[in-house]
Amino acid sequence: MGVLTFLSDFGSQSPYPGAMRAVASGIAPSSVRFLDLTHEIRPQHVREGAFVLASVAPECPDGSVHCAVVDPGVGTEREGIVVVTQSQFFVGPDNGLLMPAAVATGPIRAMHAIDLSRTAYLRTPISQTFHGRDVFAPVAAHLAAGVAPSAIGPEIEDAIPLDLGLRGGDFDPHNLVFHGRIVYVDRFGNLITNLPTGDVDAARGDVGTFRLSANGRDWPLERVPSFGHAERGDLCLTGGSHGLIEIAVREGNAQARLNVDIGSEIRLTLS
Amino acid sequence: MGVLTFLSDFGSQSPYPGAMRAVASGIAPSSVRFLDLTHEIRPQHVREGAFVLASVAPECPDGSVHCAVVDPGVGTEREGIVVVTQSQFFVGPDNGLLMPAAVATGPIRAMHAIDLSRTAYLRTPISQTFHGRDVFAPVAAHLAAGVAPSAIGPEIEDAIPLDLGLRGGDFDPHNLVFHGRIVYVDRFGNLITNLPTGDVDAARGDVGTFRLSANGRDWPLERVPSFGHAERGDLCLTGGSHGLIEIAVREGNAQARLNVDIGSEIRLTLS
Amino acid sequence: MGVLTFLSDFGSQSPYPGAMRAVASGIAPSSVRFLDLTHEIRPQHVREGAFVLASVAPECPDGSVHCAVVDPGVGTEREGIVVVTQSQFFVGPDNGLLMPAAVATGPIRAMHAIDLSRTAYLRTPISQTFHGRDVFAPVAAHLAAGVAPSAIGPEIEDAIPLDLGLRGGDFDPHNLVFHGRIVYVDRFGNLITNLPTGDVDAARGDVGTFRLSANGRDWPLERVPSFGHAERGDLCLTGGSHGLIEIAVREGNAQARLNVDIGSEIRLTLS
Repeated sequence: MGVLTFLSDFGSQSPYPGAMRAVASGIAPSSVRFLDLTHEIRPQHVREGAFVLASVAPECPDGSVHCAVVDPGVGTEREGIVVVTQSQFFVGPDNGLLMPAAVATGPIRAMHAIDLSRTAYLRTPISQTFHGRDVFAPVAAHLAAGVAPSAIGPEIEDAIPLDLGLRGGDFDPHNLVFHGRIVYVDRFGNLITNLPTGDVDAARGDVGTFRLSANGRDWPLERVPSFGHAERGDLCLTGGSHGLIEIAVREGNAQARLNVDIGSEIRLTLS
Repeated sequence: MGVLTFLSDFGSQSPYPGAMRAVASGIAPSSVRFLDLTHEIRPQHVREGAFVLASVAPECPDGSVHCAVVDPGVGTEREGIVVVTQSQFFVGPDNGLLMPAAVATGPIRAMHAIDLSRTAYLRTPISQTFHGRDVFAPVAAHLAAGVAPSAIGPEIEDAIPLDLGLRGGDFDPHNLVFHGRIVYVDRFGNLITNLPTGDVDAARGDVGTFRLSANGRDWPLERVPSFGHAERGDLCLTGGSHGLIEIAVREGNAQARLNVDIGSEIRLTLS
Repeated sequence: MGVLTFLSDFGSQSPYPGAMRAVASGIAPSSVRFLDLTHEIRPQHVREGAFVLASVAPECPDGSVHCAVVDPGVGTEREGIVVVTQSQFFVGPDNGLLMPAAVATGPIRAMHAIDLSRTAYLRTPISQTFHGRDVFAPVAAHLAAGVAPSAIGPEIEDAIPLDLGLRGGDFDPHNLVFHGRIVYVDRFGNLITNLPTGDVDAARGDVGTFRLSANGRDWPLERVPSFGHAERGDLCLTGGSHGLIEIAVREGNAQARLNVDIGSEIRLTLS
């Protein structure tokens, strides 16, 4: 029993996710469960991919292997890596994509560069444009089949970091303002911020009216226990399933209302 | 061997379906097959979700467990339930979502409220906004692993009903008119009505020209054995795979042509 | 251990892919891995479906069974077929959809018509509109469970051919021009041509500037080892993962730039 997940920006209408799973299915035993996290990461949006992987990986059982590909640098000098954490394995490009998830399931125990000359663990010939199929999927499947990470390539000390700022909102206690930003926007237009729910609740408790500043405008909004408690059409604030403050419009779209996106700065004032 | 299905309105580009499957994969044995029905139910459209679940569940093998989440009321007082039918198990919010599928695989044998204090069967802490991950997926996975429904919570007598009117079209024999409505619109713009094919065929046989009234306008349309028999671009009528009359335009889009949607009323006249 | 893939144009938001997998899950043993290639083939676009199937099938392990449904002729006289190649099995409509993949995993060993009277291998009653659920999925699942193709129906000599022209670009050595066409457009707007990378490289090597003629206009473009080597926003040429020349715009959309689609003719001049 084991789990092998796949995440990419290839789009599920394309042949590419299927090709990755096809290659892996010739390597991993049938007892390994394949789980597609998503293949709809916005094209080449490493930060979005990193957020999704970091939010799902901690839910996976120990020993899970993750194959993640959001890879604007494919075919250049960027390396492929394997990151081994206390409980899980991550395979993908060395561009930061894997790191928030590795931290979330950490501590990191070892990192290995994928040695492209060890063709026993790869699909050959290796194309210049599709390392998901030729490198990452077969390496991940071999790990899921029990191959040791040290067989994949030499240990390395450093990888490209990526800080999503998931725990990085700042609180200004003098003005009672949290400075944060949007780290994810979901299908409903709900905005996930980088403000930990616990921090905001510690400053004021989980009720009351806040003032949200975004995109040069101000909005009043109510703290509710869940979106279901808000009035239809009202902008509201809740503690989301990621442990982070989320902004939503019940049966509406907060992203459209505020005209913001991943990376947009926000201020939240206890007023 | 067993089957555990997932259905939601989370969108497959989001982290949420992956998180549900991740949690379930730590509970259900690897011999349980995971099947995603769809995660593209329109946001919070309980009726659309209920139709899809009711149309697929009867195709699943006996003993299948279904985890379905279209849940505008998450975090409010609405309860989570387990519905046990003659052959299958349904887990989700008590908002009607599960009921048409339960009826379709019925009779219903028992219903249980999910007791949120029985944390052995849940993911804790339980968030206010994501019961799919924290409540429904782990409960469904435990059922798939063989846990008895009675372990999940107390038996209940009633659940919120939902009648999709799947067998509810009315026939006016005097005027030779069927009064019905649209219950589903598929990707091709084909319109599934709630008029049983058998009823319509009994009234006139499976050929001839009908008159369709929808949205204040009238359309002539031909009864064909299948869409492939219609002229390209013609509005036509056929007996669909759900056992219900469907309206389509061959290599075209009937929804756009008629400007209707789920819930729209139609009249079909034998003329 | 075995693999059963599914490909269709049903759309993953619809009940239809789930219904196919549901039916198959009652037949195939749990050790058979189900892989969805994609259900987002453009509606009734047999050529796009054929390309995706042909590009993924060769990556699958020997013995894999493929259930593919892009079927504008469902319910008409067109037959269902099973194509057995040296290493794999293909099940679907006899409209050309399966043939490029069969050739790619060939040679073809036998073809069988699906006999709709052998109901032991079908879901009954057989609807007129959904052979994916009623015919192709159960037949494919029975093959994955070890049933012999000869049990499904009588052997046939001919099937509807489909030539995607995957190896069919023409080279005019006098004018140094390749005449080809677009065979696939991916999510990023990258254009896959039918010009084999090896042929183009043999004529000039894998560097230099080319002139692309498409849609009545001319474009200069650089041959790069991979898209990552191109300048942002530049149209470029590379050898793609299908073994075919691809045209792309780094961090942009080549389809939009050139206003072309599957089937569009192109000329590539060594200038």
